[in-house]
Amino acid sequence: MTTLHALGQQSLFALEMMAVLAGALSGVLGALRQKMDLVGICVCGFLTAFGGGVVRDILIDRRPFFFVEHQGVLIAVLAISAGSAILVGRRGLESGERWLQVPDAIGLGLFSATGAHLSLTLGQPPLVAVMMGVITGSFGGVLRDLICNQIPVLFSDHRPYAICAAAGAAAYVVLSTSGAAAELSIAACVLVATGLRLPAIRLDWRLPPTGTA
Amino acid sequence: MTTLHALGQQSLFALEMMAVLAGALSGVLGALRQKMDLVGICVCGFLTAFGGGVVRDILIDRRPFFFVEHQGVLIAVLAISAGSAILVGRRGLESGERWLQVPDAIGLGLFSATGAHLSLTLGQPPLVAVMMGVITGSFGGVLRDLICNQIPVLFSDHRPYAICAAAGAAAYVVLSTSGAAAELSIAACVLVATGLRLPAIRLDWRLPPTGTA
Amino acid sequence: MTTLHALGQQSLFALEMMAVLAGALSGVLGALRQKMDLVGICVCGFLTAFGGGVVRDILIDRRPFFFVEHQGVLIAVLAISAGSAILVGRRGLESGERWLQVPDAIGLGLFSATGAHLSLTLGQPPLVAVMMGVITGSFGGVLRDLICNQIPVLFSDHRPYAICAAAGAAAYVVLSTSGAAAELSIAACVLVATGLRLPAIRLDWRLPPTGTA
Repeated sequence: MTTLHALGQQSLFALEMMAVLAGALSGVLGALRQKMDLVGICVCGFLTAFGGGVVRDILIDRRPFFFVEHQGVLIAVLAISAGSAILVGRRGLESGERWLQVPDAIGLGLFSATGAHLSLTLGQPPLVAVMMGVITGSFGGVLRDLICNQIPVLFSDHRPYAICAAAGAAAYVVLSTSGAAAELSIAACVLVATGLRLPAIRLDWRLPPTGTA
Repeated sequence: MTTLHALGQQSLFALEMMAVLAGALSGVLGALRQKMDLVGICVCGFLTAFGGGVVRDILIDRRPFFFVEHQGVLIAVLAISAGSAILVGRRGLESGERWLQVPDAIGLGLFSATGAHLSLTLGQPPLVAVMMGVITGSFGGVLRDLICNQIPVLFSDHRPYAICAAAGAAAYVVLSTSGAAAELSIAACVLVATGLRLPAIRLDWRLPPTGTA
Repeated sequence: MTTLHALGQQSLFALEMMAVLAGALSGVLGALRQKMDLVGICVCGFLTAFGGGVVRDILIDRRPFFFVEHQGVLIAVLAISAGSAILVGRRGLESGERWLQVPDAIGLGLFSATGAHLSLTLGQPPLVAVMMGVITGSFGGVLRDLICNQIPVLFSDHRPYAICAAAGAAAYVVLSTSGAAAELSIAACVLVATGLRLPAIRLDWRLPPTGTA
């Protein structure tokens, strides 16, 4: 049982690392599209990979940041950002862009669970916990777009992303406040968030239109 | 007397809520002009309504945020943001836009007083207290404009807004450090800030031009 | 010896103030180029002068900010921002722009040392200390560009600036963790960062190109 638990922990960490690196590559691609230099590429990779957690930690006043505690992951993100920009380049990254959506969608579920969990731990109300889940899961891309001088895709592409994170985080909040085990609540969050996001991409779902009359 | 005091507190809260909702609607309009989706509309409504206080609280390292303490107001802001975008739409909001300037101008005075008050409570120097008043009263719109990928109106429309907040906050700081009662200091801040802002709109006052020679 | 030490401290403070004011003027120029009003000019001057330290202090959760502790410097920055915009104007500032690069390059070294120092004091790992040095030395301009609705020059001009700060901060970290005296570590940081930045400007060095294939 302990071995099984340890195996579960390791799988979780491996999934999170895949999602972090998918975020970094998405940031690098955004930077390359704006013809940024190596500094901008590393900052964009860093912000897209770690930015959601950094914004959440600033809002809930929590330190140290993940990247401060795990210097190894920070080094990996910066090295992969610079390396992929130099060795792979924009066209290469674009050709693999759609494959990044799978680890990204898994990360959306995992990070939303983390954000909701930390918020509930502080005694914050349910809706705030859902917001913190959404921010953790999706605001790395918002920071990338701000730096790239563009309206954040998260706010303007009319496709479900933050909504998937919100649904997953809501599932987490309901289960967790009902006394469910942490593993079950996390699994439910990933199932809902990732399980909504993947078909949303595949079937090109759209958000309801807003009145522009 | 106690009844009168309670009545005053309730009126103050009602005025603040009107100003918060006017902020949310201004954010929704900004988001609709950028053709954002429902997620962007809610984020813009949220940031314009609560953003000034959030920036101030991050700067003075104060928690919990207002929206964390008052989940009901958070729900109202998000519901009104989504609802007004779907039911009223851009044209409808634009037709009422000038009427939003009155609760907004009252909020400018009230929130500037709050910011200056919290800063003084921490023992910060007078000019910083004025800055915190200005930020509380006017930086929600700055966050809205950043998200909407535009140069903040607050910094570029050559009309008095931050200046009105600064004058009100300065009145608050002078009275408060002279030992005046809180009610008197707040009233003076609103009188000065709102009392400058309303004629500034009506009479189209401009800031002095800056050298572009 | 005490007199010599005091003289050193005073020189250091004078150099820092020159760098802060050079930052303010660079912010004013950015604001004038965007035709901002007096409020935008003061905010841009403030952010470029103090913004790197503010971002670092938010990230490492340190208060009070430098400008809160030194109201006199805050007054000077705001007065020089407004005054230079009105009295000197855009053309005047542009004609002196290249001379600002010298105090700015000295500030790059000094502020990078400060950031790395504060980070190490908190027990943060070496790479994070270098990052905090770079942020302190160079993120004022990033905030200026965000407010001016432009892709930050720091991320896109393909010229060494953050890299110089990183090299200086790395020198600081190596010396400081080897037990060198603070004065020596600071001097090394300035020598490396400023000593790379000045020839980089003069000889128009470029960063290695990134794959846009």
